[in-house]
Amino acid sequence: MRFYDELTSLKEQIGFDERFVPLRKYDNIVLSGMGGSAIAGMLFSDLFSSVPVTVVNGYDVPDFINENSLFIAISHSGNTEETLSALENATSRGAQIFIITTGGKMASMQGEKIIVPKGLQPRSSIGYLLMPLLRTFGLVDEDIQANTVEAIDRVLGMTDEIRPLAESIVENEKIPVVYGIPPSQTVAYRWKTQFNENSKIMAHSSTLPEMNHNEIAALPYSFLKDRFEFLVAGIPVGKYLSRVRISEKIAGVKFHLMPEISGEPVPSMFASIMYGDMLSYFVAEARKVDPREVSAIESLKAELAKTD
Amino acid sequence: MRFYDELTSLKEQIGFDERFVPLRKYDNIVLSGMGGSAIAGMLFSDLFSSVPVTVVNGYDVPDFINENSLFIAISHSGNTEETLSALENATSRGAQIFIITTGGKMASMQGEKIIVPKGLQPRSSIGYLLMPLLRTFGLVDEDIQANTVEAIDRVLGMTDEIRPLAESIVENEKIPVVYGIPPSQTVAYRWKTQFNENSKIMAHSSTLPEMNHNEIAALPYSFLKDRFEFLVAGIPVGKYLSRVRISEKIAGVKFHLMPEISGEPVPSMFASIMYGDMLSYFVAEARKVDPREVSAIESLKAELAKTD
Repeated sequence: MRFYDELTSLKEQIGFDERFVPLRKYDNIVLSGMGGSAIAGMLFSDLFSSVPVTVVNGYDVPDFINENSLFIAISHSGNTEETLSALENATSRGAQIFIITTGGKMASMQGEKIIVPKGLQPRSSIGYLLMPLLRTFGLVDEDIQANTVEAIDRVLGMTDEIRPLAESIVENEKIPVVYGIPPSQTVAYRWKTQFNENSKIMAHSSTLPEMNHNEIAALPYSFLKDRFEFLVAGIPVGKYLSRVRISEKIAGVKFHLMPEISGEPVPSMFASIMYGDMLSYFVAEARKVDPREVSAIESLKAELAKTD
Repeated sequence: MRFYDELTSLKEQIGFDERFVPLRKYDNIVLSGMGGSAIAGMLFSDLFSSVPVTVVNGYDVPDFINENSLFIAISHSGNTEETLSALENATSRGAQIFIITTGGKMASMQGEKIIVPKGLQPRSSIGYLLMPLLRTFGLVDEDIQANTVEAIDRVLGMTDEIRPLAESIVENEKIPVVYGIPPSQTVAYRWKTQFNENSKIMAHSSTLPEMNHNEIAALPYSFLKDRFEFLVAGIPVGKYLSRVRISEKIAGVKFHLMPEISGEPVPSMFASIMYGDMLSYFVAEARKVDPREVSAIESLKAELAKTD
């Protein structure tokens, strides 16, 4: 499969209809994952807060985890070193265990499992990793699913807008700076990591209104000011749109805004993910680098294995 | 007071001995703040997880907040728009309310209060904002306090190391990229915001091991690769030191490491904060910009007030 087709398969992934059935009451949810799997947990936590949701991306788990916790390990490969360590810790504390994976070691570990389709890069499987969370906790119904597919379709039709932006980033060798907007601030971080992995360029993300309390002080005066491309991931409305406009004025730079695609949180979130995925892909294409290849991450894992 | 003296007053702030007395049991803690106040909450959440701790930096509060929640609003001025909104929401949900502030509107709002000394910039008051949290939840005793003061003293004696690093950043017009190390990943974000506000330069932060899953893929190939200064905030040991060394090798860049100052979490955290504060100050000095002045943030607040 072409890597572009992997990314745009997001639209089909919205139909992935698997969910967990919690066996007993829980007081809190802990999601553990690294990289793209961590992002699935973070995106979920942007939208759900009926109980405290903690996302951990490392070896350790919070002290509070016990039999009243719902622990969800997310690992595309099922072999992520840090997540395996966190999963073992959570199991020993008696937490209710859920696992989202394609297989690997996790497929044979204790806990209820959702097995997601293999064959895509972990970062291309964001829909498969995220939809079980949205379905389990009631954040998607048939209408929202239909609107999400429609929103993604609209973005897929925007190559004439997205490709020139990508080409301009490459031509001017710019570093993307991406700002996230409530309720889905995490999408900005997703764009950043897609620039890293697909385009092989550094990128930075922050959120609004938080950047108004620190980063804005640097924008008018920074080194390399004209080498950053300022992007807003998500669709700002109301007071957030005012903040975007005022921030641009104070900083003396223009932010690139997406067109208004949907006012609903879930469709808007997935549309923004798709937009960033396409942008990072077209940057790779314009740079003539292979968007699929992430040999640096693979070399690092091999080197780490030697130190174990 | 010179701004440098403001920053180095961190050492004296460790002696700030105020704490809350929770009135009843609680199931979770929510900390609300923006900018430097949010960082105090994030630093605390790196060290404490006996119950779920959620840090929010925006207008809204999580759905789960109720009478079993302990809500701590942190605002240096006591007038932060977003935090006031979150505080009102939490109060209406019946949460137990604690407030850390110098005064402003929050001084007359419902809830138990810790009033911190006025006169410093919010970001120079990080010790005043953080120590009440560490004391209330039992993370500091007399020994740890003494070791923290000693660790800060050691960093204060390192100007001959820190100043040349700052001068080299300015001479080569570099953008700092700061990596945080468990257990205090947030210190990297503190360094980033201090570069923004004190030095008026863009900066980026991430954490280990998370950056090994995305950013590492960009480092060998990125635009402007030689215009980033890679810094590690905190003192990596064991498997984290291995990750630092392997990351450097894969990326083909050198990371600047701090000398080993303390193996204890709290002294190490404050020593790392002091190191970053000094570095950002010396960058400002070498650039001949006023480290205290943050007129962009003030202009933005004035513009926002007009839209209310």
